[in-house]
Amino acid sequence: MKKNTTPSNRMIVMQVATALFLEKGYQTTSMDEIVAVSKVSKTNIYYHFKSKEELLAAIVDQMINRYTDMIDEIAAQTDWPVTDRISRFAALLTEQTPNSLGGCPFLTLYVQTSHDSEVVREAIGAFFRKQTTTMESLLQEGMDRKEIQTALPLPQLAALLVSTIEGALFLQHTQRDPALLSTILHTLATMLK
Amino acid sequence: MKKNTTPSNRMIVMQVATALFLEKGYQTTSMDEIVAVSKVSKTNIYYHFKSKEELLAAIVDQMINRYTDMIDEIAAQTDWPVTDRISRFAALLTEQTPNSLGGCPFLTLYVQTSHDSEVVREAIGAFFRKQTTTMESLLQEGMDRKEIQTALPLPQLAALLVSTIEGALFLQHTQRDPALLSTILHTLATMLK
Repeated sequence: MKKNTTPSNRMIVMQVATALFLEKGYQTTSMDEIVAVSKVSKTNIYYHFKSKEELLAAIVDQMINRYTDMIDEIAAQTDWPVTDRISRFAALLTEQTPNSLGGCPFLTLYVQTSHDSEVVREAIGAFFRKQTTTMESLLQEGMDRKEIQTALPLPQLAALLVSTIEGALFLQHTQRDPALLSTILHTLATMLK
Repeated sequence: MKKNTTPSNRMIVMQVATALFLEKGYQTTSMDEIVAVSKVSKTNIYYHFKSKEELLAAIVDQMINRYTDMIDEIAAQTDWPVTDRISRFAALLTEQTPNSLGGCPFLTLYVQTSHDSEVVREAIGAFFRKQTTTMESLLQEGMDRKEIQTALPLPQLAALLVSTIEGALFLQHTQRDPALLSTILHTLATMLK
C-alpha cells in the first residue's frame, strides 16, 4: 500500500506547491496553505519534506531536470530550422506555467528566494549556464547549415539570446502582451539572417 | 523643529527599506527590522507610512521618478553616440543598487511583490513602457545620424533592447559575472552597425 500512495502524495504536494510558489510567491506561501490546497496531511507532507526550503529545493531540481530534457529534445530536432527550435525553446519556458510572477518560472524562483536559499539560486545559475551552452551549439549548427550568418563570437551571441528570452518573458508579463516574446524573438532572428 | 526632522526621518527610512527590500527581499523584511536598522522609532515610521505596502509604493514611486530623470538626462546628451547612451542607461539600472536579488531593482521588486501589490506592479509596467518609448526615440536619432542601420521596425527593436538589458542584468547576476551586461550590449550594438 505505502509503495503506491507515497510517491503520489509527494507528487501532488510538489505540483500544488509549484503553482503556489510561482503564481502567489514563495515567501507568502505557508506550509499550512499547501496542506489546505493539496489536501495531503501536514504529517505526510513533513514526512516527505522536512521544511519549505527542502520542498523548494526538490521543486527546483525537478523543474531543472524536466526543462533540461525538453530543451535537449527540441535541440535534437535536426529536421527543424535552428531559429524555429530557439523560438520553441523560449515558448517552453512560459507555456507550462503561464502565470509565473516574473514571466519565466526560473527567474521567478531565483528572485523570490533570498540568500538563505543560496543552493537553489546556484542551481538556477547552473541551469542558465547549461542553457547558454546548448544555445551556442544550436547557433553553430545554424552557421554550418547557412541558416544563420554572423561574424560575432558564438558564446557572446548565445548569452545575448538567453538574456533576450528571459528579458522578453519578463517584459511580456509586465505589459500583459502575450505576443511580445515572439515579436522580440522574430526581430532578433531577422538580425541573424 | 518638526519641519526639519520629518523629511529626514522619512528619507532615512526609505533608504534603509530600499536596500533591505532589494538585497534581502520585500516579503522577508519586517517593519521591526526597518526600525532596528534605521534607528527611527516605530511610531515615527508608522506616522509616515501606514503599512509596509505603503512604504513599498513610496519607494517604487521614488525609484521611478529618479530613474526616469536620469534616463531622460542621458537620452538628451546629443553629443554622445546613441549606442553609448544606451549602454550608459543600461549600466545605470544596476550601479545604484548593485546587489539587487534579481539584477535590476525594478525587476526585483516586481517579482518580489505578489498580486496583493498590483498597483506597484502596474507602476513598474508603466515605467518599462516609458523606457521602451525613450529607447525608440534614441534609435530614431541613431538612424537619422546614420549611427545605426536597420530595416527593422523601431518599436520592435526598442522592445528587444529593453528586454535584452533586463535579461542581461538578470543573467549577469546568476552567473556572478559583472562584465556580462556590457559584453551582451556590445554584441547587440555590433549587430546594429
